[in-house]
Amino acid sequence: MINQLVEQIQKKEAPIVVGLDPMLSYIPDFIKKEAFEEFGETLKGASNAVWQFNKAIIDSTADLIPAVKPQIAMYEQFGVEGLIAFQKTVDYCKEKGLIVIGDIKRGDIGSTSTAYAVAHLGETKVGSKSYAAFGEDFVTVNPYLGSDGVLPFVEVCKEHQKGIFILVKTSNPSSGEFQDQKVDGTPLYELVGRKVAEWGEQCMGDKYSEIGAVVGATYPEMGKILRKLMPKTYILVPGYGAQGGKGADLVHYFNSDGLGAIINSSRGIIAAYKQEAYQKFGSQCFADASRQAVIDMREDIHSALAAK
Amino acid sequence: MINQLVEQIQKKEAPIVVGLDPMLSYIPDFIKKEAFEEFGETLKGASNAVWQFNKAIIDSTADLIPAVKPQIAMYEQFGVEGLIAFQKTVDYCKEKGLIVIGDIKRGDIGSTSTAYAVAHLGETKVGSKSYAAFGEDFVTVNPYLGSDGVLPFVEVCKEHQKGIFILVKTSNPSSGEFQDQKVDGTPLYELVGRKVAEWGEQCMGDKYSEIGAVVGATYPEMGKILRKLMPKTYILVPGYGAQGGKGADLVHYFNSDGLGAIINSSRGIIAAYKQEAYQKFGSQCFADASRQAVIDMREDIHSALAAK
Repeated sequence: MINQLVEQIQKKEAPIVVGLDPMLSYIPDFIKKEAFEEFGETLKGASNAVWQFNKAIIDSTADLIPAVKPQIAMYEQFGVEGLIAFQKTVDYCKEKGLIVIGDIKRGDIGSTSTAYAVAHLGETKVGSKSYAAFGEDFVTVNPYLGSDGVLPFVEVCKEHQKGIFILVKTSNPSSGEFQDQKVDGTPLYELVGRKVAEWGEQCMGDKYSEIGAVVGATYPEMGKILRKLMPKTYILVPGYGAQGGKGADLVHYFNSDGLGAIINSSRGIIAAYKQEAYQKFGSQCFADASRQAVIDMREDIHSALAAK
Repeated sequence: MINQLVEQIQKKEAPIVVGLDPMLSYIPDFIKKEAFEEFGETLKGASNAVWQFNKAIIDSTADLIPAVKPQIAMYEQFGVEGLIAFQKTVDYCKEKGLIVIGDIKRGDIGSTSTAYAVAHLGETKVGSKSYAAFGEDFVTVNPYLGSDGVLPFVEVCKEHQKGIFILVKTSNPSSGEFQDQKVDGTPLYELVGRKVAEWGEQCMGDKYSEIGAVVGATYPEMGKILRKLMPKTYILVPGYGAQGGKGADLVHYFNSDGLGAIINSSRGIIAAYKQEAYQKFGSQCFADASRQAVIDMREDIHSALAAK
């Protein structure tokens, strides 16, 4: 799957992933009104609003971007109905030729990690039949439980040509509380990064591994170090835009081949119409605002890479 | 919620939680056959088998135990249908007066962690209405992202009188890969344990905090240290039985008041009928085997505590 991701990034000249993390507060009132009229102010109504909102943004940006990253928590909050909207979103994105990175941050041990991996990347066996339960192309994985937690995902990746991004250094202010703790002078995130590179050797695509890493845009110096430590690892970079990361901060997440990183923006794209810069679109044309925000983000990253 | 848990543990004289982690291979053929006849060899058929299996075990053990711990991965592998079975299981256990610990090991940042916390412990707002999406009483939380990841759960616990168990030292063989790394001579799991105690101060029940910890039965020496480090923290102890932990290993997870720990067994209880010791029950009476396994586990722990 990493080969397809690289190919799509090159084809669309956009190392960009749009985070489909629809808080209800991001969704224009007219969409919520319509959904609530049909299904009431219920979990089903909210989930329908989420799905209509996503669909419009996907329709308006799919030709520009290689991938989307739905954040499953935003769907899980609406219970089973929300997960139906998650599944519809995944299916629709795949129909549109987009690569889907499920931001699920799962991680457990042994057969439990296998169950998560199968649920999201593999196929669940039922008697003589097999089914892809959610069917993403990549998922994010939490490494706190060590190899026992991660390797079941790696096995499913090998079997089904899928990929994962393992949390190494997250974008949030308190990520350093545990991740930056020094072990014989080496921060924990570096130890995790080295493990990611090692696990990745088992599961190589043409130039990059199916086993990627998450490194936040908000820590560019650490990104620079991790880039060198994991040369064949694709880095998924959250924290651009709303969380404070800028194109110029991100150049060191890329290798000299111009590849090796994919930058995520969620709120900055999907709720663009709420920003001053895109207010002229108005809430009715929220999806056009999202399209313009993708174009601007791509330009920002291209300029930064050109000036590297 | 921790007060209710303590009360139920005392009332039933059983510091025991039954892990409802139903692999299809644990479920007797006659249940699967019936479910597949009704719904086909589909995700719905499998989920129905899971639900029938759970229901029988709950009916047969509910009077003996204070709590259950469904492992959501085992439901997620069957997609939306599996999550319907998860929700039915949670609802049914609560009807039966059981406390439900959702073993979800979620953890993200800011509004995303809030969404998970709301989904499982709080109430999701939709317009003027609010709904409990999954409605567990406790959930397990992964601490790798630091305070930003954990505190949103703590806030929801405060608001809704619910609780969490944070992964400190997990029961799996490779848990030491990151968790045992020494920071200035102190292993990471101890740093996490101290943070758990600190977070817990914000959210106290009568004697114990709503913020608990997960410490595997397979590391009794570390359990002993962590017990002292987090005196007001309830410890959820996985790894008993099938993973190798025995009652005698667990005495140091308890405080001198006889409280402070709750021991989980999953496979050892729910698939008891497959063990030699309980073969006499046969697969038709699998739920009676589970009941006997609960009685035996309680006895093992009582004996160990009496000999302490």
